[in-house]
Amino acid sequence: MILTVTLNTALDLTYGVAALVPHSSHRVTDLSERPGGKGINVARVVTALGHDSVVTGFAGGATGSVLRELLAALPPGTATLTDALVPVAGDTRRTLAVADRATGDTTQFNEPGPHITAAEWTAFLRSYEELLTGADAVALCGSLPPGIHVGAYAELIRPARAAGVPVLLDTSGEPLRRGIAARPDLIKPNADELAQLTGSRDPLRATRDARRRGAHAVIASLGPDGMLAVTPDGSWQASPPAPVKGNPTGAGDSAVAGLLSGLVEGLSWPDRLRRAVALSTATVLAPTAGDFDRAAYEELLPRVAIEEHAPAA
Amino acid sequence: MILTVTLNTALDLTYGVAALVPHSSHRVTDLSERPGGKGINVARVVTALGHDSVVTGFAGGATGSVLRELLAALPPGTATLTDALVPVAGDTRRTLAVADRATGDTTQFNEPGPHITAAEWTAFLRSYEELLTGADAVALCGSLPPGIHVGAYAELIRPARAAGVPVLLDTSGEPLRRGIAARPDLIKPNADELAQLTGSRDPLRATRDARRRGAHAVIASLGPDGMLAVTPDGSWQASPPAPVKGNPTGAGDSAVAGLLSGLVEGLSWPDRLRRAVALSTATVLAPTAGDFDRAAYEELLPRVAIEEHAPAA
Repeated sequence: MILTVTLNTALDLTYGVAALVPHSSHRVTDLSERPGGKGINVARVVTALGHDSVVTGFAGGATGSVLRELLAALPPGTATLTDALVPVAGDTRRTLAVADRATGDTTQFNEPGPHITAAEWTAFLRSYEELLTGADAVALCGSLPPGIHVGAYAELIRPARAAGVPVLLDTSGEPLRRGIAARPDLIKPNADELAQLTGSRDPLRATRDARRRGAHAVIASLGPDGMLAVTPDGSWQASPPAPVKGNPTGAGDSAVAGLLSGLVEGLSWPDRLRRAVALSTATVLAPTAGDFDRAAYEELLPRVAIEEHAPAA
Repeated sequence: MILTVTLNTALDLTYGVAALVPHSSHRVTDLSERPGGKGINVARVVTALGHDSVVTGFAGGATGSVLRELLAALPPGTATLTDALVPVAGDTRRTLAVADRATGDTTQFNEPGPHITAAEWTAFLRSYEELLTGADAVALCGSLPPGIHVGAYAELIRPARAAGVPVLLDTSGEPLRRGIAARPDLIKPNADELAQLTGSRDPLRATRDARRRGAHAVIASLGPDGMLAVTPDGSWQASPPAPVKGNPTGAGDSAVAGLLSGLVEGLSWPDRLRRAVALSTATVLAPTAGDFDRAAYEELLPRVAIEEHAPAA
């Protein structure tokens, strides 16, 4: 089972409008709601790849109830996605994407999320440590809701490592900086997150620097250029066969799902990277944000180019 | 008791953002949720004026539940606001106002509302006719949700008139045109709605034309210029003492509340108009959209200017 943690889950709304005109009134022409938050996206993809998954984190209020109903209503597959979210008193946040149907552009509004109390955090920790006993790998994903201390991810990495469960951390800013110090097995920053962490915009230099800060392996996602992996076993660059156009929402979460499922299956680093790049490219190509196009994935997988880098000096 | 009908109720969300920048991502800095839809706003104001009110219309799904919880949680006053909304299978709509805290401007997004089935409409009609037996006046307010036929308001006006309950219609477009033919006691169009109905932008001519189409009295709201009333008993222009700056959201609903409460209290037309203009001006002045500033209302009431017009030629 792959465990994913989303401390700041969300109900992702999309409003389609004919054209976004600030300071005017808009009729919403189409509307969709889906369970969101990075760890939940990761779980959907690993489940689609045939791995049972468990999602945890927090859910509360009316929006939390809708989120959990939508999770329960996901179409059944060969693998199961289990809801182990911890109830909280506050209201789960919404995120809203306003999609301008004229230009295809999206304008995003993110609610901050509920305030988590000390008692709710303690209840979560107890549940999390229990879930770890059945987990083959764990992904810690996304931003921290109000009330959670900035070193929270370090507090979640330590018991995972003590239990021998490989842990991937996918967050940014200070929570990433503090989390790395607890030595996660994997981090998957994008170029901006890497630059913010290390001060360098040179991908290879920044990735190596991030490893020195404590991450065992660093997989930098470089958007259309694919991924750069610096690991204890070597360094690789993985590139999609050709640039694609589409909606990048969720592409990073699909990459995390590819890396974790490949790890659990004992794949080599090059094969994990192939999967991660093919999945994230197939997510950009999918008509619905955050889903992946399975046919495109199967077609892309053997065509991802892998180049090995010389070891660091 | 004053009955208000809101066929397309809404949960009104407001997102405060530092500055609205299309095609970028925004952190929502402050968030409010309130029960919405024109008839619900009217009921809040008539209740604040000391009249018991009953709200009906439709509510459904998770958003409908939140709406009903917020209605139940309104602070108690001397008068009661009773929820008689009819449950439906579809989801009550949200309306979202994105408030740009830098400029003070608002960008509005309105969901279309749930599809109402024939059986739900029939259930509503049954409940509505029962509620009419206890009503001193009824306000029919706002847009029609999907599935409701465009002549719906005429269908609601007839039993009210048969029961001798004065009926005010506050809607626009084709539902207004069709509704007027059923001879409501009062309509309260704004200048745009009047022009759309009659083809004339001359307020007095358009108001008289609207009366000829079937409304017994027409109270045209002219924004900062106050209100123009053409009634069987005479014609009046009511003007606020001075122009005010603020948020006009809900000002029209407060005017409806002023007109209906004045009617139920047996006030003269000039006194009803004074109340309607003072309430709507005090709504523009209130810090929260849709509320009215009671101190401003009391202060404005004796200062509204009333001018009687000569009868139509």
